[in-house]
Amino acid sequence: MKIILVNVNTSESMTEVIAAGARKYASPGTETVALRPFFGPEAVDCNFESYLSAVGVMDRVLAYDEPYDAVVLAGFGEHGRDGLQELIEQPVIEICEASAYAAMLVARSYSVVTTLQRSVPAIEDRLKLAGVSDRCASVRASGMSTLELDADPRGAIRGIVEEARIAVTQDHAEAICLGCAGMAGLEEAITSELGVPVIDGIGAAVRLAEAVVGLGLKTSKVSTYAAPDPKVITGWPLTPKNTRLRNGAG
Amino acid sequence: MKIILVNVNTSESMTEVIAAGARKYASPGTETVALRPFFGPEAVDCNFESYLSAVGVMDRVLAYDEPYDAVVLAGFGEHGRDGLQELIEQPVIEICEASAYAAMLVARSYSVVTTLQRSVPAIEDRLKLAGVSDRCASVRASGMSTLELDADPRGAIRGIVEEARIAVTQDHAEAICLGCAGMAGLEEAITSELGVPVIDGIGAAVRLAEAVVGLGLKTSKVSTYAAPDPKVITGWPLTPKNTRLRNGAG
Amino acid sequence: MKIILVNVNTSESMTEVIAAGARKYASPGTETVALRPFFGPEAVDCNFESYLSAVGVMDRVLAYDEPYDAVVLAGFGEHGRDGLQELIEQPVIEICEASAYAAMLVARSYSVVTTLQRSVPAIEDRLKLAGVSDRCASVRASGMSTLELDADPRGAIRGIVEEARIAVTQDHAEAICLGCAGMAGLEEAITSELGVPVIDGIGAAVRLAEAVVGLGLKTSKVSTYAAPDPKVITGWPLTPKNTRLRNGAG
Amino acid sequence: MKIILVNVNTSESMTEVIAAGARKYASPGTETVALRPFFGPEAVDCNFESYLSAVGVMDRVLAYDEPYDAVVLAGFGEHGRDGLQELIEQPVIEICEASAYAAMLVARSYSVVTTLQRSVPAIEDRLKLAGVSDRCASVRASGMSTLELDADPRGAIRGIVEEARIAVTQDHAEAICLGCAGMAGLEEAITSELGVPVIDGIGAAVRLAEAVVGLGLKTSKVSTYAAPDPKVITGWPLTPKNTRLRNGAG
Amino acid sequence: MKIILVNVNTSESMTEVIAAGARKYASPGTETVALRPFFGPEAVDCNFESYLSAVGVMDRVLAYDEPYDAVVLAGFGEHGRDGLQELIEQPVIEICEASAYAAMLVARSYSVVTTLQRSVPAIEDRLKLAGVSDRCASVRASGMSTLELDADPRGAIRGIVEEARIAVTQDHAEAICLGCAGMAGLEEAITSELGVPVIDGIGAAVRLAEAVVGLGLKTSKVSTYAAPDPKVITGWPLTPKNTRLRNGAG
Amino acid sequence: MKIILVNVNTSESMTEVIAAGARKYASPGTETVALRPFFGPEAVDCNFESYLSAVGVMDRVLAYDEPYDAVVLAGFGEHGRDGLQELIEQPVIEICEASAYAAMLVARSYSVVTTLQRSVPAIEDRLKLAGVSDRCASVRASGMSTLELDADPRGAIRGIVEEARIAVTQDHAEAICLGCAGMAGLEEAITSELGVPVIDGIGAAVRLAEAVVGLGLKTSKVSTYAAPDPKVITGWPLTPKNTRLRNGAG
Repeated sequence: MKIILVNVNTSESMTEVIAAGARKYASPGTETVALRPFFGPEAVDCNFESYLSAVGVMDRVLAYDEPYDAVVLAGFGEHGRDGLQELIEQPVIEICEASAYAAMLVARSYSVVTTLQRSVPAIEDRLKLAGVSDRCASVRASGMSTLELDADPRGAIRGIVEEARIAVTQDHAEAICLGCAGMAGLEEAITSELGVPVIDGIGAAVRLAEAVVGLGLKTSKVSTYAAPDPKVITGWPLTPKNTRLRNGAG
Repeated sequence: MKIILVNVNTSESMTEVIAAGARKYASPGTETVALRPFFGPEAVDCNFESYLSAVGVMDRVLAYDEPYDAVVLAGFGEHGRDGLQELIEQPVIEICEASAYAAMLVARSYSVVTTLQRSVPAIEDRLKLAGVSDRCASVRASGMSTLELDADPRGAIRGIVEEARIAVTQDHAEAICLGCAGMAGLEEAITSELGVPVIDGIGAAVRLAEAVVGLGLKTSKVSTYAAPDPKVITGWPLTPKNTRLRNGAG
Repeated sequence: MKIILVNVNTSESMTEVIAAGARKYASPGTETVALRPFFGPEAVDCNFESYLSAVGVMDRVLAYDEPYDAVVLAGFGEHGRDGLQELIEQPVIEICEASAYAAMLVARSYSVVTTLQRSVPAIEDRLKLAGVSDRCASVRASGMSTLELDADPRGAIRGIVEEARIAVTQDHAEAICLGCAGMAGLEEAITSELGVPVIDGIGAAVRLAEAVVGLGLKTSKVSTYAAPDPKVITGWPLTPKNTRLRNGAG
Repeated sequence: MKIILVNVNTSESMTEVIAAGARKYASPGTETVALRPFFGPEAVDCNFESYLSAVGVMDRVLAYDEPYDAVVLAGFGEHGRDGLQELIEQPVIEICEASAYAAMLVARSYSVVTTLQRSVPAIEDRLKLAGVSDRCASVRASGMSTLELDADPRGAIRGIVEEARIAVTQDHAEAICLGCAGMAGLEEAITSELGVPVIDGIGAAVRLAEAVVGLGLKTSKVSTYAAPDPKVITGWPLTPKNTRLRNGAG
Repeated sequence: MKIILVNVNTSESMTEVIAAGARKYASPGTETVALRPFFGPEAVDCNFESYLSAVGVMDRVLAYDEPYDAVVLAGFGEHGRDGLQELIEQPVIEICEASAYAAMLVARSYSVVTTLQRSVPAIEDRLKLAGVSDRCASVRASGMSTLELDADPRGAIRGIVEEARIAVTQDHAEAICLGCAGMAGLEEAITSELGVPVIDGIGAAVRLAEAVVGLGLKTSKVSTYAAPDPKVITGWPLTPKNTRLRNGAG
Repeated sequence: MKIILVNVNTSESMTEVIAAGARKYASPGTETVALRPFFGPEAVDCNFESYLSAVGVMDRVLAYDEPYDAVVLAGFGEHGRDGLQELIEQPVIEICEASAYAAMLVARSYSVVTTLQRSVPAIEDRLKLAGVSDRCASVRASGMSTLELDADPRGAIRGIVEEARIAVTQDHAEAICLGCAGMAGLEEAITSELGVPVIDGIGAAVRLAEAVVGLGLKTSKVSTYAAPDPKVITGWPLTPKNTRLRNGAG
């Protein structure tokens, strides 16, 4: 089985963090490949950047011309999953949803700890549209941006652990989801501090992708995620070989 | 007062429909300008196209270098509003939300009649995230795509009226929202058939934009819609002068 | 265009505050008229008084025999809007709903700051029934009654600003709605202190009324708000000329 | 124990129906008194009439100067309960809420069958604000007004039974609430036809009033339902002795 | 009228507390009988114990071979009510739901104060499934287990009153439900401290059972609570005479 | 990795169906063991039987004294999962929730097709408490009981396919969950008829169990699912060696 993970930003170091997380959590027989968009922002912390990244991610996946079984959208709560689901048949797993699912399988309620307060609404929206927000105790922000986290991951731990502690003691969360791909690797630190399961979105998405592929499931094409009708897409400066992006996905 | 309307697709005829709707509904003292993206699909009927259009719309608005007071996002339920809200200070009004607001001001409940069944979930999502879905009786599809509607607007009337009738008689809708910018002009036909208020999204958005501007309100920049931090956006093939898009919105 | 604003209490000074707010926010071409009921309480702070005011408001509007285009119900969250909608065809805009709509057009979430804690449930109910409570971060009370506010509007500012600050910092509100007609005029003070949009209900309702009238919309009469059937209303001591109130609205 | 039932309209025959229902369902030791307002409409089928009745009901209860233990508001889903709760300490039970409670105690889900379609939203609102709408399968209208029902109660049975049947077979209701005080007496007919529990609101409210009084409970006065502060209520033409209504409830 | 109360644990002292509560609150003409299961845990503080108790309770009720009119399930939020409703025709009232109903009849909102934090989710689930959670302000835990409460009921008062105070002042609860059968008797203490209605679940359930029986209602057997089809139940070591439990309830 | 699957009834043939489903869907390296309770009903179609099965399932799992990594509760929507989660540390996956998760990963919305209408509410409750009901389009019943399905699985196909078709065409479901362990094997038939993903709960649960185990996650023991305190459990006729069941799980 081969799973593609697409970073939503163009940061090489972040892409490597994602690749390492995938290797750490994938089953022995699973090959993982971490990609990053050919264009777009170096970090994604707002809706403007998230929409750019959605196009970059769709472009990058369509430009990948080897076989694969599933795609992991490795941006926590970012836009683009439903677009990808229309373009390909393989399952597309987004890491925010995936970590919520994993948390709900082992805990009554969960909280998300993310980077900036301004990202909280996007995550709340993602969970609400995904239909898994009922058991979300809270979405909390540590106050460090993705870039700061990327630059100094160790320094970020304290703030993240602190918010997780409040989530457990005040919001009655019984599991913690790490709300940013760049937080990968903090699971053990938080679990040993707080005694609750901690979920890394990359890991959760990879394992859920394996599960869905193992079940033989593909994205339902009966209505919402049907392939787009061919259309003229004028002036769009995407990767040249992506004729599919230029003419719809037929 | 000057209001920009941005079509989400590159169709010239659809842009003219939008421009005409704006002229029809705007107050006497309001200037309206209808723009269309420099690149992107000729019609938007799915999430893939909607994400492309979101970038095209943000690009087009930022490239507009004359003063204006508000922006109307003239794609029914399409992506991009929150990105635009981050990039500019002027209010951004999306036509799906706007028509829901207008309907709720004069009716206990409303239904949306849109083009294709595959677009129904996107509209339901938009209304849910906008927080105005409680009084939505139903979202119904006439079965004609945006392109078909663009090509033969008169032929589309029958299907739209028929769905509207079911919405009123079975779903107990007491107002109808026309779920596509291209349906502009059908208001009178449906009202005279069914005796309920019919709301055109372009008109609703223009008038609500006037209201918000008249109140002296601008988009709240305190958290969610704060301007993006400057960032390196590599390889992004957008309109050259849009340095803001390339380096964040500072 | 001519818009009637009906105070829900009989206070002359409060009616003047409402009239001034209407003049401040109305478009140049809009005439506004502030009325007060012929009978009823001098202030409305509970459901008992709110029901009395609902009848007084309906009576006053029906007694107004000049033409007009819309009615603004100038009591924050008070009863009576749906009754008025049945009695007349012109749009009826209630200021609590109106301020929520305006807030949602420029902010991700909003809080209401009102007078007394006992009024909070009525406002929550109004927002819930109006279908716009999802993005309400909180409804907070400053602890001063409408009468105290009427008597000393300047002294009330401190308490209101303080609750607004908590709404922004703790509840993550990104806009503030002033939850009482008598708070008109505090917008600038709060905006300059907290940096978020502040919405005055009178202004929001007047501008939304203009928008709805400009769209050519009238209250839907197809079911819920149809005119009442004529009925014998015995012994009802209302304004003598209001035969409509005595015999239904036919 | 003594329970007052207040009809919301001035119809003498409907008041007698209510009185008979109360006698039928009250415990042996319970005295029941059916009152009707001194003024107001002969039937209540819309919000306009419902607000008039709310004032008439509050006036009538306050004019009753003998001791009593609880009040039943005998208008299905009509306005006024919260006003009465502020004015007196005795429990106030509204028949729509009461029938929902009774239904939920013996059935997984329930439907309401009422008179006119235009009354459905008011009942839905009442159930939603009462917090008991989750298990409501549907609110259905038979198409006969309260007056028609009052004039020819037997003729109304067929339509009511028919809607109840649809509620059970299509909406999966497992109990039926009779959505109008005037439907009292149809319980046996529907139960024998459909084999589900049928709840008469008058009976449910009387028995729940007995229960609450028996528990020694009174309306909570700590916040929402605290007695109104004394206020000048000018020009209000209510029952002369109701000085409480004129000056607040102190 | 005769009402059976079934304790969910095998504690004799707790059963006596339940019996005393029933005697205290029942109407003069009502006979109450407190039973306890023949087997099961001495106290129920978690789901494991709650499932054991559900079987013990069903066994005990079926083994009771004298006539009765209703059953009160005297475990706050415990499992088993729907099973009992299938096995018998008489109404089954659970004390958590019952106290919510009673609270909602006299207060705008209510809070539950229970024993351990770990029991809070079960109570929240019970209220949600019962469809009465909308007006629940909070479920709070005092930190003492059922056994500790049973051993030293007086010592438990302080913690319970303290949580109730926070519920009233911070969560805006206007009534308090005692969230454990063993808290019976604390009503007066809390009411006199906090000035809000306090509801004992045993009392509420007994009085609601009287109300439902008085209305002539029985559990709806049309679908969800129909009697189980006869089945082979092998090896089940229940009370020998309970052939109904062994062979279904036919 | 080793996963235990526990049938909720004592049927040997149904247990074999479960075992076969587990073998069909498990990863190559995963060992699966299908158990059935030592006592209890031969089929579970109602709450009474479901509570019996919950105890039988807990008893059976605790009696299993070899190592294992996860438990699948192989009764669609049946009681007992939370009890098991308290008793053991290994993840416990219930097949109704599991199939909802799998469906949501590949489809916008899903429907469940189950056996009897009386089972629909239990499944709706399970999905609601699990927090995954928002995207459930409908729960439909084919009208055949578990026993009938067990006796004649092929004959059941037609009814199940028919309900699935209505779910897709009328309820707009884009995936189908087979709502009974005994429906295993119908996936291909329905997919080829309707063109939508079909999810077998056994398969989904096994693969999700593998995912959760692979992530190194165990049930959160911080509050709700903490091990029960030791207690005296008198007279409980469970499997003798299950001293843990007799004395709590310590």
